[in-house]
Amino acid sequence: MNIIEIIEKKRDNRELSVEEIRFFVRGVCDQSIPDYQISAFLMAVCINGMTDGELSVLTDAMAKSGDTVDLSYIDGIKVDKHSSGGVGDKTTLAVAPMAAACGLTVAKMSGRGLGFSGGTIDKLEAIPGFRTSLSEEEFTRFIKRDGIALMGQTKNVAPADKKLYALRDVTGTVPSIPLIAASIMSKKLACGSDSIVLDIKCGSGAFMKNIDDAVTLAHKMTAIGESGGRRMYAIVTNMDQPLGRAVGNALEVKEAVDTLKGKGPKDFTELCYIIGSFMLVAGQKANNTVEARKMLEATIENGSALNKFRRFVENQGGNPEITEDYGILPSAAVKRPLWSPCDGIVTAIDGEKAGAAAVSAKAGRLSKTDKIDFGSGFVLLAKMGDRVAKGQPLAEIYAPDEKSAEEAEKRLSEAYSFGNKAEIKPMLLAYTDGEGIYFDKDKH
Amino acid sequence: MNIIEIIEKKRDNRELSVEEIRFFVRGVCDQSIPDYQISAFLMAVCINGMTDGELSVLTDAMAKSGDTVDLSYIDGIKVDKHSSGGVGDKTTLAVAPMAAACGLTVAKMSGRGLGFSGGTIDKLEAIPGFRTSLSEEEFTRFIKRDGIALMGQTKNVAPADKKLYALRDVTGTVPSIPLIAASIMSKKLACGSDSIVLDIKCGSGAFMKNIDDAVTLAHKMTAIGESGGRRMYAIVTNMDQPLGRAVGNALEVKEAVDTLKGKGPKDFTELCYIIGSFMLVAGQKANNTVEARKMLEATIENGSALNKFRRFVENQGGNPEITEDYGILPSAAVKRPLWSPCDGIVTAIDGEKAGAAAVSAKAGRLSKTDKIDFGSGFVLLAKMGDRVAKGQPLAEIYAPDEKSAEEAEKRLSEAYSFGNKAEIKPMLLAYTDGEGIYFDKDKH
Repeated sequence: MNIIEIIEKKRDNRELSVEEIRFFVRGVCDQSIPDYQISAFLMAVCINGMTDGELSVLTDAMAKSGDTVDLSYIDGIKVDKHSSGGVGDKTTLAVAPMAAACGLTVAKMSGRGLGFSGGTIDKLEAIPGFRTSLSEEEFTRFIKRDGIALMGQTKNVAPADKKLYALRDVTGTVPSIPLIAASIMSKKLACGSDSIVLDIKCGSGAFMKNIDDAVTLAHKMTAIGESGGRRMYAIVTNMDQPLGRAVGNALEVKEAVDTLKGKGPKDFTELCYIIGSFMLVAGQKANNTVEARKMLEATIENGSALNKFRRFVENQGGNPEITEDYGILPSAAVKRPLWSPCDGIVTAIDGEKAGAAAVSAKAGRLSKTDKIDFGSGFVLLAKMGDRVAKGQPLAEIYAPDEKSAEEAEKRLSEAYSFGNKAEIKPMLLAYTDGEGIYFDKDKH
Repeated sequence: MNIIEIIEKKRDNRELSVEEIRFFVRGVCDQSIPDYQISAFLMAVCINGMTDGELSVLTDAMAKSGDTVDLSYIDGIKVDKHSSGGVGDKTTLAVAPMAAACGLTVAKMSGRGLGFSGGTIDKLEAIPGFRTSLSEEEFTRFIKRDGIALMGQTKNVAPADKKLYALRDVTGTVPSIPLIAASIMSKKLACGSDSIVLDIKCGSGAFMKNIDDAVTLAHKMTAIGESGGRRMYAIVTNMDQPLGRAVGNALEVKEAVDTLKGKGPKDFTELCYIIGSFMLVAGQKANNTVEARKMLEATIENGSALNKFRRFVENQGGNPEITEDYGILPSAAVKRPLWSPCDGIVTAIDGEKAGAAAVSAKAGRLSKTDKIDFGSGFVLLAKMGDRVAKGQPLAEIYAPDEKSAEEAEKRLSEAYSFGNKAEIKPMLLAYTDGEGIYFDKDKH
């Protein structure tokens, strides 16, 4: 087999064989294929696409390129969730204890944040004492006893994806739906869950700007997962503005706890119910999403979700008293309001610019070695559809110093748009159970 | 400006600006753009193409990336010719003295051969004593006195093309019509002629397998040349089998001399008249191709073309007596016939396989450092349309040793196809004067 012939085949939009795709992934990993050939191949895929068959083989080969995680020693159906990256997305923090309180086993591996979207591990580490580097024995013990545990990814999962992603990033081949699908799913398939619920963000603040692309991605990813033997659900959710009000690690922990107490922002609470419902159906704890939603609502009303969260934090070395005393959480040195420059209605809050504001406030990192300030970030006081008056505060910015606060204020102000009328979409735009695709209102 | 944005633009099939294309070529030359980004860009061009405007700018930037040749100190219209690579193509050897005998100034720079097609310089160096490394003073003196001189390319012409071609070769991006056009024309534009006659080979033995691609390439190249201020003619000629009967350096010199004596193979003689006619029209030595052809025929009949060739050889240190005594030319140690395996009519002689046979016989090189045996190659005794009987010789193979001869015999036998009827196309398939495109018979 010959890499030039494989590149030529994809250039001419002919379907690659199983052997050719495996040869490519093997060559990426053992470095026998030089970068300039990999990038020519990636561009050909970016322009010509891939069939579902090719994509399943590519993803499978990438998933098997490194270590795989075996969760079969844990009883029951293991359900994983994945969000395609959003600003202010603290869903795992709230939905994991809610689902665990409904009897679902939540054995989660998470990553750190990079760029505009924060990572679950960074958020949890804002809780004093919280450890995400668990031993396997601890991980298993917590799951068996309390049905919930979360650890950082320590193994060498899908190294082919790391290599390919690094090249895509510098060769204009990031926004390829098949390559995005393969990248996400290769890591998920390597991680041993039985069922996966995918949350694909769609809107100005998301990678998928329009519903058609988001639905295509949903279809591709569920097809890959099912050909890998997983039960798949994918939802497409609205991301025209940051999720909830809080962006920044300790600020998001507070908001997640508020939500577990039934006092969270409406949009974020709604998303937790939606994702949690699909997780319960996937894990066969509920027959349908209507029944599942009632179960999840009950965990908020009866306090079982909050208790599960406290148990989860305590197991992993964190101080559970944070749920009663937010003063225990790290706080920022500087607080600064962002004033509204005009009268009007907030028509949009650009997610990328809001994410950049969080990075400026030191709540996120641009390179892997950047240090995060856990107390930093911002809380949005005005969201889409809110009427504001000139000089009214739009947001509170938290930062370690005046300079960072100033820069974050500047960037966040650029994220806001004003006008006469905001078009607010529902949270759930579409979903698929791996067969049909249903748009909101069609069926639910 | 940012290379990733430039790649993205071409990926999305948007037109690049003049500045963006120049930025790319500059980055290729100064190595500020890494290979993996260049190859992603090349693949995007290969799939999405380029507009004529983009292509002119790209070619111009490539032409100006290195040294340029100034021929303005030589009086008259300087006409260059270029053939897109064929097997057995010794046209320059015959047509240059024919055109010079008609009063055209032929100041030619040529290259060596690589791969399946031989180079004019290798062919001329088969003549004992012939030098292609002339001083500028010699070059000018020969041209002023005799109207003909040929030297090897010594300057650093179009280094951007060298770099891009090396990457195209290993990334599946060779057969892109715009990239082929830019590669050829960047070298031609750097070489200072006033008018260029392009001979684009079309057929099984050529890079362009079908007439549509060949015509598209002809159009693209004439458009580039004209936007660079050159008077352009492009012809598309048939290459369903090797040109003439001889393939190999000394063997081709003999065939060229035979042709100058009026005893050359019909197809090769015809091609010389066609190319020569356009050269004379381009150089304003004839009003049309009909008149030009008569002038060229006269140079054969009255011996002036042969005399010009002898003068040319003598000027450059070669022994002019080779035209009277072929025994002076190098000859191969081993001679071996290729027998016909069956009765039938020769329906095709695959050019690529025939070229590979020449390389096996040591008449061509695969890498720049390979040494050539000047006497080697083959002479085709049976060409398309000829009826042969089993055991009758199809060709004579010449090689430095038995092993090479055997391998060449094997490869050449694979080039032959037999059947009941051969479809023989005319030599001139189409031509353009930079405005219309005329197919053979339409107008001539």
